[in-house]
Amino acid sequence: MFEELKRRVWEANLQLPKHALVTFTWGNVSEIDRDRGIVAIKPSGVPYEELKIDDIVLVDLEGNVLEGNLKPSSDTPTHLVLYRAFPSIGGIVHTHSPWATSWAQAGLPIPALGTTHADYYYGEIPCTRKMTESEIRGEYERETGNVIVETFQERDPTRVLGVLVNQHGPFCWGKDASEAVYHAVVLEEVAKMAYHTVALNPEIDAISQPLLDRHFFRKHGSSAYYGQTPRTRTS
Amino acid sequence: MFEELKRRVWEANLQLPKHALVTFTWGNVSEIDRDRGIVAIKPSGVPYEELKIDDIVLVDLEGNVLEGNLKPSSDTPTHLVLYRAFPSIGGIVHTHSPWATSWAQAGLPIPALGTTHADYYYGEIPCTRKMTESEIRGEYERETGNVIVETFQERDPTRVLGVLVNQHGPFCWGKDASEAVYHAVVLEEVAKMAYHTVALNPEIDAISQPLLDRHFFRKHGSSAYYGQTPRTRTS
Amino acid sequence: MFEELKRRVWEANLQLPKHALVTFTWGNVSEIDRDRGIVAIKPSGVPYEELKIDDIVLVDLEGNVLEGNLKPSSDTPTHLVLYRAFPSIGGIVHTHSPWATSWAQAGLPIPALGTTHADYYYGEIPCTRKMTESEIRGEYERETGNVIVETFQERDPTRVLGVLVNQHGPFCWGKDASEAVYHAVVLEEVAKMAYHTVALNPEIDAISQPLLDRHFFRKHGSSAYYGQTPRTRTS
Amino acid sequence: MFEELKRRVWEANLQLPKHALVTFTWGNVSEIDRDRGIVAIKPSGVPYEELKIDDIVLVDLEGNVLEGNLKPSSDTPTHLVLYRAFPSIGGIVHTHSPWATSWAQAGLPIPALGTTHADYYYGEIPCTRKMTESEIRGEYERETGNVIVETFQERDPTRVLGVLVNQHGPFCWGKDASEAVYHAVVLEEVAKMAYHTVALNPEIDAISQPLLDRHFFRKHGSSAYYGQTPRTRTS
Repeated sequence: MFEELKRRVWEANLQLPKHALVTFTWGNVSEIDRDRGIVAIKPSGVPYEELKIDDIVLVDLEGNVLEGNLKPSSDTPTHLVLYRAFPSIGGIVHTHSPWATSWAQAGLPIPALGTTHADYYYGEIPCTRKMTESEIRGEYERETGNVIVETFQERDPTRVLGVLVNQHGPFCWGKDASEAVYHAVVLEEVAKMAYHTVALNPEIDAISQPLLDRHFFRKHGSSAYYGQTPRTRTS
Repeated sequence: MFEELKRRVWEANLQLPKHALVTFTWGNVSEIDRDRGIVAIKPSGVPYEELKIDDIVLVDLEGNVLEGNLKPSSDTPTHLVLYRAFPSIGGIVHTHSPWATSWAQAGLPIPALGTTHADYYYGEIPCTRKMTESEIRGEYERETGNVIVETFQERDPTRVLGVLVNQHGPFCWGKDASEAVYHAVVLEEVAKMAYHTVALNPEIDAISQPLLDRHFFRKHGSSAYYGQTPRTRTS
Repeated sequence: MFEELKRRVWEANLQLPKHALVTFTWGNVSEIDRDRGIVAIKPSGVPYEELKIDDIVLVDLEGNVLEGNLKPSSDTPTHLVLYRAFPSIGGIVHTHSPWATSWAQAGLPIPALGTTHADYYYGEIPCTRKMTESEIRGEYERETGNVIVETFQERDPTRVLGVLVNQHGPFCWGKDASEAVYHAVVLEEVAKMAYHTVALNPEIDAISQPLLDRHFFRKHGSSAYYGQTPRTRTS
Repeated sequence: MFEELKRRVWEANLQLPKHALVTFTWGNVSEIDRDRGIVAIKPSGVPYEELKIDDIVLVDLEGNVLEGNLKPSSDTPTHLVLYRAFPSIGGIVHTHSPWATSWAQAGLPIPALGTTHADYYYGEIPCTRKMTESEIRGEYERETGNVIVETFQERDPTRVLGVLVNQHGPFCWGKDASEAVYHAVVLEEVAKMAYHTVALNPEIDAISQPLLDRHFFRKHGSSAYYGQTPRTRTS
């Protein structure tokens, strides 16, 4: 019954090494079945080259394991906080992809410096505040989710499809696991180009609102005109 | 009748991922049949690994679709402006290749810092001015072409074979689609080396006119002596 | 009798080019059989693509060759000093991997700037002092080991699993050859991200002690909860 | 009679794309038969993937073509100047490899910042002075060789096995074509690490004379002790 969900999550996880987003096991992807409140997620510490469909773990929104012989990703509590707080999202990915992580370690948001960014992220990609000692010593992975949610109090997670966790790395999301990975690839590419842009021109400003609007809504929403109809996930 | 044109454009598009110039679908190549005023171009949003020859769209110089079941690239109006303004060019490519795009996002032209640059680009590779709000809100892709043409008012598109669109990315051209892609590869390599050159020596100046002349005309024009005779496109 | 040891060392050496840690023959891996005081190590100057299991050389802790037709790595004396000084380690790897070597050439330790670092290295990755003229002119490779040991006088080699030798490059270790290579891959990735982090934010500080504790002990020691049970080397 | 020479030069040329030293046709390798004064060199502008053994051109030391249906590399006069001036060298390679070229474009020598450098280059890798207008307008490729020779008036080409031509790119050499390519790979790696070292620590100094001596003579000369005996080219 959840075979299709597990297969999609398995395939999305395998996209991480293919897109060079992960070293060893440093990443995980999940997807939620909203009707049933079931989340499928990568097991903790299993190398991608050994990962089988049946290794994917099913948990409920409180983190109880419903199916699977392996422990779910240690980041599962973070995913669950995001699924509960952002009802519009269907898939989440966490990696330590090097360019995005460098910005996260620098504690800096990635400004929208060009149309590549604006095509997918409506404005800067924010960086969370540093976590407090009590958050770190407490239920750390859940608090990581909470600090992301706090960062989005005045942001729309359907328009800003990812975040940098300060001193840690990126979380991205989308309507399903596959789209979340797609956005993680975009983030890494955007992070790389922003690094080089700022080095070339430290005084550079973010692009204007009209250019941001033009590119984001060229690909998203009812007036989108990029790609074919019906639009595919690559459009 | 246009099978050969479509095949060339298809093959040139497939060169983009092969040369690591594109992520996902972020690029497109076209070629024009000057005798008939027909342009063949990549369809919008179709992944390269799925692209078939018959997906290539034929349009006239006003953008009317003459053949093909798919929508042409959303950047088609930009290509058409360039074909109309620059009668000498036969192929165009647009990508978001990361090094060239970083310069475009920085709003800076790429100075001619060495002979690699001078072998193909006769002087700096210019960066367009920022587009105005009314250009962005209007027929944006056509205006993108117009701002490129404006940038070449005092430049020769047969000697400077590409441009950086400010806050966006590069467009390159050549006598056909294949040569346009060749120039896009050169631009990316030149952009990468210029970045590192400027970082090593921020005071560096462009090379001298004699060195620029020597290298450009070693490979171009009637006194070229690089490569074999008849010269191939790699010469 | 030592076939299994030699095979493990051979396989660990072959991981170096696979993880892009070496150019040509610029690296070597060893492992010790603590019960017998026997070290298996790569022969000097043999390309990885030609390396056979029987090329692996066995030496005792004084460096006497016990088995093998080839000369052991010229860095063997460094390995032996480390095995003698750090009884807890079972495998050692030396490379000139480019990011770690850049920090070593700069004479700078790599600060713990994020959780990727903290997951494997408990605090900064130190850089040795420069070697003296008499150390360089004397038994150079043994002195290289000595200066590493000196650097760890107040550090715990089971928590800081590698070091940068000033003006030279990294040495990493672990419980066996395979884990040592794993840590060398981590070091290279951490070194790359730290470089970019510092460039983005030159004022950046190391992460806090609680965050360092949380991540290191999430993966190491009795309260580790990352990965499966029994935990694999990738956990 | 020269089949073996041509085969070696052909194979050495094919090493250039394999080691990612060239884009398109931007490089060439030659080797000299000192007894007969015959140089085998890549033809001009032929893509590596199409290059056949019989395409390799034989010329004498004055540049007269002795065998081959294709034009020799346009850089042939530079190679010939070097063979005439440096009797100890047997193979030469020229590329536009990006890291070495970035230093060349910056007009800066690469200082010896670590042992990787010292293992193969005895001191800084020099950068030629800029060429004069009359040199550029005259027999440019021959003058390129002359300016390299001028740079080595007080340097030993058997200890400094390559050079950066200002605003152009590297030339490397060795006892034969294969060793020249080996040194070109080393140069590119050393150039990359020096770039990052200087960025991390702009005040960094070259390594000391004793460390330079120790590493260079560990691999070169009568007291070398790296590698096996008889030493291979990878030792």
